[in-house]
Amino acid sequence: MLAEIITIGDEILIGQIVDSNSAWMATELNKIGIKVKQITSVSDDDQHILEALKNAENRADIIIMTGGLGPTKDDITKKTLAIYFQSKEMVLHQPTLAIVTNIFAKYKAPLLEVNMQQAMVPNNCEVLLNQQGTAPGMLFRKDKKIFISMPGVPYEMMNLMTSTVLPLIKEEFKLPAVYHQTILTAGVGESFLAEKIKDIEETLPPHIKLAYLPKLGSVRLRLSTTQHASDEIKKEVLAYADKIIERIPDVWIAKEDIPIEKVILNLMEVNHLTLSVAESCTGGAISQMITQHPGCSKVFAGGGIVYSYELKSKLLGVKPETLAQFGAVSEETINEMVTGALLNFETDYAVAVSGIAGPDGGMPDKPVGTVWIAVANKNKVVAKKYNFGNKRAQNIERSAMAALNLLFRLLKEFHS
Amino acid sequence: MLAEIITIGDEILIGQIVDSNSAWMATELNKIGIKVKQITSVSDDDQHILEALKNAENRADIIIMTGGLGPTKDDITKKTLAIYFQSKEMVLHQPTLAIVTNIFAKYKAPLLEVNMQQAMVPNNCEVLLNQQGTAPGMLFRKDKKIFISMPGVPYEMMNLMTSTVLPLIKEEFKLPAVYHQTILTAGVGESFLAEKIKDIEETLPPHIKLAYLPKLGSVRLRLSTTQHASDEIKKEVLAYADKIIERIPDVWIAKEDIPIEKVILNLMEVNHLTLSVAESCTGGAISQMITQHPGCSKVFAGGGIVYSYELKSKLLGVKPETLAQFGAVSEETINEMVTGALLNFETDYAVAVSGIAGPDGGMPDKPVGTVWIAVANKNKVVAKKYNFGNKRAQNIERSAMAALNLLFRLLKEFHS
Repeated sequence: MLAEIITIGDEILIGQIVDSNSAWMATELNKIGIKVKQITSVSDDDQHILEALKNAENRADIIIMTGGLGPTKDDITKKTLAIYFQSKEMVLHQPTLAIVTNIFAKYKAPLLEVNMQQAMVPNNCEVLLNQQGTAPGMLFRKDKKIFISMPGVPYEMMNLMTSTVLPLIKEEFKLPAVYHQTILTAGVGESFLAEKIKDIEETLPPHIKLAYLPKLGSVRLRLSTTQHASDEIKKEVLAYADKIIERIPDVWIAKEDIPIEKVILNLMEVNHLTLSVAESCTGGAISQMITQHPGCSKVFAGGGIVYSYELKSKLLGVKPETLAQFGAVSEETINEMVTGALLNFETDYAVAVSGIAGPDGGMPDKPVGTVWIAVANKNKVVAKKYNFGNKRAQNIERSAMAALNLLFRLLKEFHS
Repeated sequence: MLAEIITIGDEILIGQIVDSNSAWMATELNKIGIKVKQITSVSDDDQHILEALKNAENRADIIIMTGGLGPTKDDITKKTLAIYFQSKEMVLHQPTLAIVTNIFAKYKAPLLEVNMQQAMVPNNCEVLLNQQGTAPGMLFRKDKKIFISMPGVPYEMMNLMTSTVLPLIKEEFKLPAVYHQTILTAGVGESFLAEKIKDIEETLPPHIKLAYLPKLGSVRLRLSTTQHASDEIKKEVLAYADKIIERIPDVWIAKEDIPIEKVILNLMEVNHLTLSVAESCTGGAISQMITQHPGCSKVFAGGGIVYSYELKSKLLGVKPETLAQFGAVSEETINEMVTGALLNFETDYAVAVSGIAGPDGGMPDKPVGTVWIAVANKNKVVAKKYNFGNKRAQNIERSAMAALNLLFRLLKEFHS
């Protein structure tokens, strides 16, 4: 059972929008055993949309489209679908009109003619009611294949997928149960891992595949079944996962597909521990990673974004002499930062980061990318110096990842 | 002159990785007048890669590939390119071997056999030296078309594009100069804007196109030329941009394609103003938006991530009685937060956010999505209540955007 995703919109092809919808849809389709054969992005152009539909129809059983359903002139997906499926006319969909009316009433915005047009749909589609926005989802059928069109606004698409599209696909098709087992690692590279587990990888049977999924500062190893995962095959996958974990004791973090900050939150919540941060060069990146998770307030108290010298002293008690003598990016300062956070923010654990993110601010003995990270609890302070190179965004992301990894290791030492 | 982008990697099709490379490449190609016809994501499968190459070759003049060049077994792009272009053999590329050796020496990592294999390339490619990583870029030529393969690691790809690929394309092809003019707006929706400027849009000549690019909390309007942009056509585009701006005086923020926080940083730097934040439900999102920009330290002092009641009192001086009587999400608390930030962090401007991001924590009178935002300088405090609905990620993003918009309006009032 193959699916294809077609995202429609000039904004993707001129690069103004990053297509994050496709990754989310692919993840959800995979979970129910649908393989995505191809993801294709095309422009708001009727001929191009028609061509992409035809090609996808030749390769896949389920074609999922997003985008091009807005109320403005450049959005032509609905019209183009009416052509492709030879619809006789556009008809008013009353429940959608009710939603449109409600949304505008709720936000006290004037309901315009273009907004009401959103409730008109091709006569031969099944409407997938969009509770979150004005553009309805649409489903067309042709030769046992299904075609689904959804708005490109991420939360509208996600809601439609979860509430309607995925249950519908599960019901209509009989699907093999694919099984994935992910191992999260941090701190070493892809090729180091590959060499470490080379012999295990070589013994994998053809029905189990191993993939390396690197991000800055972490690599996920993913074992997947290539066929229907019986309980026996699942056990086999788990056994291989355990073999790999045994081989990399200081590197693996979790045996599930979960971000590192969520591993930390879970471990700290179970142990009734609290956390604060003192972020300089990461500028809120660590806090943001943590606070995207619901319920993080049980663990996370907050902390300081201490970009200036003044705030390093004021919020963390870093001594002005320390800053003057050793600079903001030094072992002395990071130690005062992390102990200051622990003390002033009154938490069980603290993490502090101070570095030169760049592109400016480098010095001969402290080039751009030099970052000091410290983690602490009341018994132990660990400070470590890194160099992450000369790219600002990369420095921030790698610093945040390294800080979380260092925190995880300290937590494991005390609460394994 | 048309380009196509092919991203290669199972990790994209199973949704483990969001393809942000394509948007970046499309933006850069557009800037030099290359239109991206299609973006296609395919799996680490030789037949699928060969098929995608053939299809792209039929539609475009420039085919740009990323991914599948890692040292591990699942990376097969290089082998597959050797098949497609009928290479005779793989040959050692000495400069690449030197880079590989250097990288491993620098990070004091053991140089493994698989890493050295990275320096082997098909005999009939031109190597595009990758200074940032172990996988070299490769260029193949066929019937006046060019095919470029680059690693999927974003900063390696970006560096190769900027240093080598874009200059090479500019030199080899004669390109029309496309011209874009973007207008950033915030606080109102796409359809509201469309209705406001309907008559202007209707008078646009065929060689100028208008696109609406909505994100949560902001909409960019983009005027683009569809043909070579002469000075005269550029003037015409600018005149239309000015017409649009005049129509939406309280809504437009900038007449360039620039994020709102950068507009704020520029305006504050020119006026020698400083900024601090007090973030509760946004949890660092505002700080992170600001600190991604180099040089932000001239304006941004930092601030507090005040997730807990205790830190709201300790860092901002919010009175415990206020929290007890009115709650953390209230006009009284947000006013104390923002004035506390202004006073304690000693900046000219401060912005504070406190809300219920969800999914839990809602109350009958304060449902999930209720957010109080305040901005202040020494002369004025503005506090405003919002309701952003029941999605956590959306609440955080919309709160950050609304806070920046409110800050921008206050700045404009005092420093227009």
